[in-house]
This record gives sequence, C-alpha cells and structure tokens, in this order.
Amino acid sequence: MNGWEGCLEEAMSRTPLLKEVGEEGVIRLLRGLFPARAGIPLGIGDDTAVLPDTPKSYLLFTTDASVDGVDFRLGESKPEAIGRKVLAQNLSDIAAMGGTPLYGVMSLGLPASLPVDFVKKFYAGVKKLSRKFKMQMVGGDLSRSKVLFASCALIGKVEKKFAIFRKGARAGDFIFVTGSLGGSILGKHFHFIPRVREARFLVRNFKLNAMIDVSDGLARDLGHILAESGKSAVLYGNRVPVDQAARVLARKTGKNPLEHALGDGEDFELLFTVSLREGKKLLALKKVLGTPVSFIGKIEDGKGLFIQASERSSEKRKRISCSGFSHF
Amino acid sequence: MNGWEGCLEEAMSRTPLLKEVGEEGVIRLLRGLFPARAGIPLGIGDDTAVLPDTPKSYLLFTTDASVDGVDFRLGESKPEAIGRKVLAQNLSDIAAMGGTPLYGVMSLGLPASLPVDFVKKFYAGVKKLSRKFKMQMVGGDLSRSKVLFASCALIGKVEKKFAIFRKGARAGDFIFVTGSLGGSILGKHFHFIPRVREARFLVRNFKLNAMIDVSDGLARDLGHILAESGKSAVLYGNRVPVDQAARVLARKTGKNPLEHALGDGEDFELLFTVSLREGKKLLALKKVLGTPVSFIGKIEDGKGLFIQASERSSEKRKRISCSGFSHF
Repeated sequence: MNGWEGCLEEAMSRTPLLKEVGEEGVIRLLRGLFPARAGIPLGIGDDTAVLPDTPKSYLLFTTDASVDGVDFRLGESKPEAIGRKVLAQNLSDIAAMGGTPLYGVMSLGLPASLPVDFVKKFYAGVKKLSRKFKMQMVGGDLSRSKVLFASCALIGKVEKKFAIFRKGARAGDFIFVTGSLGGSILGKHFHFIPRVREARFLVRNFKLNAMIDVSDGLARDLGHILAESGKSAVLYGNRVPVDQAARVLARKTGKNPLEHALGDGEDFELLFTVSLREGKKLLALKKVLGTPVSFIGKIEDGKGLFIQASERSSEKRKRISCSGFSHF
Repeated sequence: MNGWEGCLEEAMSRTPLLKEVGEEGVIRLLRGLFPARAGIPLGIGDDTAVLPDTPKSYLLFTTDASVDGVDFRLGESKPEAIGRKVLAQNLSDIAAMGGTPLYGVMSLGLPASLPVDFVKKFYAGVKKLSRKFKMQMVGGDLSRSKVLFASCALIGKVEKKFAIFRKGARAGDFIFVTGSLGGSILGKHFHFIPRVREARFLVRNFKLNAMIDVSDGLARDLGHILAESGKSAVLYGNRVPVDQAARVLARKTGKNPLEHALGDGEDFELLFTVSLREGKKLLALKKVLGTPVSFIGKIEDGKGLFIQASERSSEKRKRISCSGFSHF
C-alpha cells in the first residue's frame, strides 16, 4: 500500500483531468506505481535516478523533454538554441546531484515538412554544449510528429561521497543559490550555462546537505527540498539575487521583481543547503568559479515556506505558497 | 572529414526537406556530427549505443519514441497497449545487442485535457512489461504537448563476449529470423513480446556473427546488416516465415503475402547470421525457448539483396530493394 492507491481511487471515481491534478499529482501517482526497489538508491522524485554502479560511485540517469509551443516556439526560436536548451536542462539535473555527465541520447519528433537544415542546426547546438562539458551524444531516434518535440536522456556518474539529494536539509542549514533569479523567459532560459562545474566544485570543497536545480521556480523547488527533508524554511527578501531580467519583466507585468525571482521557472541555478560552518566559508567566498553564490535563507523545523524582508529577527514573516511553474 | 560534410553542402544549397532525404539521410548526417570517439565502442547507427563499463562488460544505452497519429492512434489504441509498446520496442533494441535490460526512463508529452486515468493505464502497461523482464523504470518527465508522445530510454548491459553488432556478418553465413513476419499492423505491433530471452539464449549457446531486430521490415533491416558488414545476401522465398496476419492483410492490399513479410515494419523479431556450423545446430533445434527460428537465406560477398523462390541453385534470383518503413 502506498500513496498512489488513494490517488487511483480518486481517479476512478472522478476521472479528473491532468490539468486538475497538476504535475505533482501525476508524479505522486508515478512514484506509487514505480516504488524504489531494494538496491536502487533513489527512483522517481529526485533530479535524476540514482543507480548502483561501482562500490564507490552511483550511476545517474535522467530524461527531460521540450515541446514546441510550450518550451519554445518553432519559427521564433533558433534551432541551435532549442537543441542546446534540451541538453542543457538535462545537464542541470546531473549537476543538481553533484555528478558528472557522460553520455546522452536524443529522441526527436519532427514535422516532415521541416528543412534538413533545421535538424543540422539543432544538433549543432547540442554538439557544441556536449563538447563544452566533455560528454558524448551516442544515439537517438527520429520520429515523424505534427508537433516538434525533443526528448533527451543522460547518463552520468557521481562518487557516493559527493552525491547530494533533495532530502538531506537539516534545521539550521543556510540556504544558498547560484547566479540570479527571475525573468529567464526574456532569454536566460535558452542561454543559461548548466552549473555542472560549479556543482562539482561545491561537492568537492564543501559538505552540502541538500541540492536541487531551480527549474520550476525558487519557491517551488525549495518546496521540493522541504517536502523531501520534512523541514520548513524562511527566505530573506533582501538577500534573494534578483536578475536584471526580472526587473525588466516586472515593469511589463506590474509585479514586484522579487515575485518573479521567487516564482519564475527555468533559471537552472543550483539551490542548496549547508551547515552553519560550511555556510560561513561560502559567505566569505562569495563566488565559485566566477559564479556568485548568495545566502538567501535558513532551514527550520516544522512545515511551510516563509519570507521576511530581511534577516533581522524583528521582521514579520509571511507564509508563501510553494507554487511555481506547473506543466499542467 | 566524413560523409556528413557533403550532406551539409547539399543541405545548404538545396535546403531539402526531411521527407526528401528520408530517415537514413538524417541518420547519416547525425553519424557525421557525432562520430564515435576513442573509448566508445559504438555510437550512432547500431540498435543501441555500446559504452565502456567493466573490463568484461559493455553498458548499452538506447532511446525510441512513439507518437500519436504515427505509431498509434489515441482513442483507437488502449493506453496500456501504447505504454507497453513504447517500452517493448526499446527492449527489442537491447535484445538485438544480446544484452539484458536494467533501467528505463520515460518522457511523456500529454495534452492537458487527457484524463489522469490515461496516464495511470499507460504506466500500468509499462510496469507490467518491465516486471516481466525484471527491469526497473526509475524516472521520467512530463510535458504538456498538443500531440501525445512517449519517449523511452533504456540502460542495459552485455558481457563483451556476448555482444552482437550489425557489422559482423561473413560470406557463407546462414541468415535466421525468429517468429514470423508481416502484417504486424493488424495487432502484433502492440502485442509482440520483445525477444530478450531468446537473444540471451542465442548468445549464450551459439556464436552469432551479426544481429538486428526487425523494426523497419526484413529487407530494410537485413540491408542494415549488409551495409555495416560490407556484404550481400540472398533470401529464399519459400523459407521466409510469413505470418498469418500477412496473409489476411494481403487479401485487402492485393499484394503477395511474402511482400508484406519482406516489407512490413514492427515485427520486432531477431534477424541474425551464424556460420554454417552454428547454422546446422540451429536448423536441428528449430525453436529456442518455444520460439521458432527459421533459416531464410545466406550472406555472400558483393553488394545488394537478392531473392529466389527456393535454395535450389537452378532458381533465378531477383534483386530487391532494401526498402521498408521510413519515418519520413
């Protein structure tokens, strides 16, 4: 028995639609259908699957797809940028486990009316990024499809001593994020550099307790860490590194730039927690490999996600929802 | 310099469409873009990628997608059958290398208006088949998409001594195929059992020289073996195991049932070549694990694929094209 049984009953009685239960409802259902088995360190639910490898290392296995009209727009987006992005978001998942990417396969669904040139440019974008991270694209599949889609799967590795999961956050941990957040729709979602090198530097030089990549929005991805770790957190508004793009976007949307930094998806930065001691070392460092790392809040016991204007204890805290981008 | 450069020049001057160059044209282009690297036994072009693992084994890595309106029809096909098929065709690729499937990830593109029940049933089909082959689905990705698609990627393993490639066929080899061929569109393309166990039995008990799974049609897939091995072949019409479904279909299409057995895709049988000595042992056996194995022809030096009514040397042979199902 597990959480999925109830979910199934509900599904049978009401036959809800995907847009009603949302992405997390479906993931809950899948976790129930495919529970982790003995010998499989982690199954569905972290950034990648974590599989047995050598006595000292895990194999990482992940997949992520992009679809025309949702993740990009054919005609508006350059084919190189689309190919690059599909690989980059998978690399970001390997980074979030503290791992090194090794091999990839790419499955493409293509309208037959597309010029061959599109495929060439798409793969040129994939190839350039794969070289940058010294990994190898080793296979693929081509299908005819009315809607263009690209689905990438990656194999990576991580030393057991360096593997970081979502579930390890402890009360008192400092929360850090790389780079800056919000407004990625204005360009960063295509051009971001997956934080593979930063992640490797971090796991080699610091003891990280939990990590995730910010793909669905800071609040939502921090929510994943909290849910897996059974903890709560407080964020300090003045500490959140708001991207310039979030400010530009805020002028159009009428929102506060901080709202964009908290809620926008596809930043693909690393969000991680460390002990007070490690946090102090990181605060002194300020950057890893040229990329800023910002202290943005603390892990606490209990439930929920809170925000206060600054870390002064006199500030009032406000509960915020762990919502961000949902696929349905 | 490689084959792709010419392809690129052609693409730049004429910007042909995918439907003009066909699937093999695109695969040629990809092989050029992602040539095998030192240390990577095989890249793009075999049934799966073959990667370094332990001193005695290779890691296998493959991906294959299915799309609504091409590989199945939403509304006409049962969700369980769709899920099952996507996994089964990937398992068939692992089988064709002589390997054992271990782990899978599934990327799904779903219209938001689908009932949750669809996803549940889709994964129930995936789960049932994954259990049958003692492998584990460990992750996935959900995207919104106007057109339903499912892309599966599998990791498998094969002992180096048992790994079988497309490129090993030798002049004089006997050509064998498992099961029967043709007319799979009438049902087998959903219900076929991937020949994982038969493949393992074969590689453990016989010395196979080349193998592929029949996904694009006997003539076309044999053509892949011939192209990779630099050989020609002759098929004996009276020896080709024509499926009953091919006869039923032939009554509708007005074709000869043998044409369906030669040309139809998605049989997912094993097509392999062995030496005369091994061939005689197999001829005596007739079945492996309850599945018929049929001797259907011979590998020869030279180029081309030929067919003659029977193996009597007095029969006239006719050149046939290596065409079958192309995705574009």
